[in-house]
Amino acid sequence: MTGSTSQDLSRLAQQKELQGEYAALKAKGMKLNLTRGKPSAAQLDLSAELLALPGAENFLAEGATDVRNYGGLQGLVEARRLFAGMMGAPAEQVVVANNSSLELMHDCIAFALLKGTCDSAAAWGRQGETTFLCPVPGYDRHFKICEEYGIRMISVAMREDGPDIGEVERLAASDASIKGMWCMPKYSNPTGITFSDKVIERLASMKTAAPDFRLLWDNAYAVHHLTDERVEIANILELCAKHGHANRAFVFASTSKITLAGAGLGLFAASKENVRWLLARMTPQTIGPDKLNQWRHVLFLKNEAGIWALMERHRALIAPKFQKVLEIFQEKLASVPGASWTKPKGGYFISLEVPKGCARRVVELAQDAGIELTPAGATHPGGKDPEDRTIRIAPTFPDLAEVAQAAEGVALCVLLAADETGTPAT
Amino acid sequence: MTGSTSQDLSRLAQQKELQGEYAALKAKGMKLNLTRGKPSAAQLDLSAELLALPGAENFLAEGATDVRNYGGLQGLVEARRLFAGMMGAPAEQVVVANNSSLELMHDCIAFALLKGTCDSAAAWGRQGETTFLCPVPGYDRHFKICEEYGIRMISVAMREDGPDIGEVERLAASDASIKGMWCMPKYSNPTGITFSDKVIERLASMKTAAPDFRLLWDNAYAVHHLTDERVEIANILELCAKHGHANRAFVFASTSKITLAGAGLGLFAASKENVRWLLARMTPQTIGPDKLNQWRHVLFLKNEAGIWALMERHRALIAPKFQKVLEIFQEKLASVPGASWTKPKGGYFISLEVPKGCARRVVELAQDAGIELTPAGATHPGGKDPEDRTIRIAPTFPDLAEVAQAAEGVALCVLLAADETGTPAT
Repeated sequence: MTGSTSQDLSRLAQQKELQGEYAALKAKGMKLNLTRGKPSAAQLDLSAELLALPGAENFLAEGATDVRNYGGLQGLVEARRLFAGMMGAPAEQVVVANNSSLELMHDCIAFALLKGTCDSAAAWGRQGETTFLCPVPGYDRHFKICEEYGIRMISVAMREDGPDIGEVERLAASDASIKGMWCMPKYSNPTGITFSDKVIERLASMKTAAPDFRLLWDNAYAVHHLTDERVEIANILELCAKHGHANRAFVFASTSKITLAGAGLGLFAASKENVRWLLARMTPQTIGPDKLNQWRHVLFLKNEAGIWALMERHRALIAPKFQKVLEIFQEKLASVPGASWTKPKGGYFISLEVPKGCARRVVELAQDAGIELTPAGATHPGGKDPEDRTIRIAPTFPDLAEVAQAAEGVALCVLLAADETGTPAT
Repeated sequence: MTGSTSQDLSRLAQQKELQGEYAALKAKGMKLNLTRGKPSAAQLDLSAELLALPGAENFLAEGATDVRNYGGLQGLVEARRLFAGMMGAPAEQVVVANNSSLELMHDCIAFALLKGTCDSAAAWGRQGETTFLCPVPGYDRHFKICEEYGIRMISVAMREDGPDIGEVERLAASDASIKGMWCMPKYSNPTGITFSDKVIERLASMKTAAPDFRLLWDNAYAVHHLTDERVEIANILELCAKHGHANRAFVFASTSKITLAGAGLGLFAASKENVRWLLARMTPQTIGPDKLNQWRHVLFLKNEAGIWALMERHRALIAPKFQKVLEIFQEKLASVPGASWTKPKGGYFISLEVPKGCARRVVELAQDAGIELTPAGATHPGGKDPEDRTIRIAPTFPDLAEVAQAAEGVALCVLLAADETGTPAT
């Protein structure tokens, strides 16, 4: 036998084996979902107290504020104080809203399109094209807002220390239609990457052609650590102010992955002028947020130590799931050329890079075997991953045994897809 | 003495007396607020149960929906069923949102400006001027949304049976920039007027120059009766469909004045196509509403009978306040030429018409005596009441004794202002 024939035979045997394993996987009739960064029921149980708070007699907050009645557009002062540290801003520069920080981001953009920011000569919608810089891979829901309103998106590569800052500086300085940039500065979705202090300072200090340029600073995972190392980042609001661009950053966060995913609090922080602007825009929109839910959160979380303690309990539940996925990927995929994955120190996602041109196929194979993954491409503007490589893995929702099964299944699909396209494991 | 001198003397004596009474009123140092339609603490107490619901173990709704987690953009099906009758639409055409129906109205308009409705050839914002018809007196917060976005407002007079429908038909048919009309069809703010079935049918059937014309049907007081007569109105959605304009009406309501003013539920109902449109617009905005609060409401209100029973308890608290105001106005103001007031069968307001050119002065005098009233003019677009006559009285928030004091005070201020402008009581 020639060497080539021997290789062919071994390849054939390997294919057969993979196909056999895949048939067995399908036969299990699994129904697993790794699509979205949803907390598990066990995580939601950690905030069970919220479900009976505040109690029938407990509704008077500071200043005799009846939390049941109308008013209080900026949110309860107790809630603003509670989250001031996490938001990196004094309580008077924090807005506590209803249950969705995505809604705050959407509304800030809609308000800017309709009315302009406090630094705009006119509404964005009347200044011609609006463009946003989009670090990729990134969060599909950010991109969806841009798509909805015809905002042009320019992809910028994510590096180990954040977006390619040289490219960002070059673009922002040269194109006045660039009005915004999506940033997830800590434990970014989906890569888990954290922006370095240097990158953050350059974002704060860079020259922008648009005087009303905004960083949409989605600090969704501010306190969502997965290791003993509590990664901290530079304070974007302070740095923007220091460099003479006090209004540059809109900071967002929420308690969706601290307390209850659907019934938490959306948070906003910015310069005083930006806060005045947002409250002015919200004045015709609403009489005020649900202060009663804010009051529940104040009573439940109490203070920053309360937030930290709760986040430790989340970590105890989800860190083993991340660990398990990483172990399985290491075991099964280490030998696949072109396959790699992030090892996040926090957040909700692992970003899996598969061999070029394989991501869609992996997702398809997984789906056929009952494992639902975020559509390939979702991590890129327009749903188009030019290399068809990135798959977002969200391990928090299923239980540990299911996560292991799902990760094994995904790894198998990667091997199969790689084999189909001629990049089998070595 | 001549007759004239005798009249002058009597007039002088009357003035002296009024001024003395006003000085005494000021000396009381009252601090009363009749500005906004806020429920009183006693009304909020009726929903005290909500403050401890659902309880730590109760979070699974129909279809194993975990109400604590993400999702469910249209709202819990149980909540949509609960309010279907009140909204006059099947549950699948109801959207249950967060705590503010004003926010739903605002957002519908913002979405239409940015994207157009499902019947629009283009975004309203790209079709030139946008105009709304505004029955007056009306609700200041409706007008504020129009002001915010530069929507031209055309005032239409309110009659006993609703807006001047002939004028509405004439305007809507002739001007394609007229894209919307504010309507509070039942117990309207501030007049308490209810649209007749005939007016409602003509609104549903009329020809409009704009194919994407919308009735913003704010049925805020759908179940908010003040008498034994539960006024019912024609079903706008059914009538619009019958006349071939199925998408014409956006119906809004909320539980702000059923359960908790700041922590209730905002409600939307419309044609299937409109609901699809709204959900498509909300998809980039939010992952879903606070289902946990919807679940609380389902557990607390239970069914329509639960809503009726609760509204009876509200009525028991607030009807006497309305009665007291009306008695005092009758006693003090019946003899003032040009003074009149509405006797609402439901809702939250009494509309007081004072002699021409007196409204601002009455509000000023009242304020100086510690009684805060809604600014004169607020009931008209741009805050401009051309005759300076309409004052909105909101008697629900203070307790009964305070309401009586405030009404006495307001009546005195009307007498004084009328005297100043030469229309004294006869």
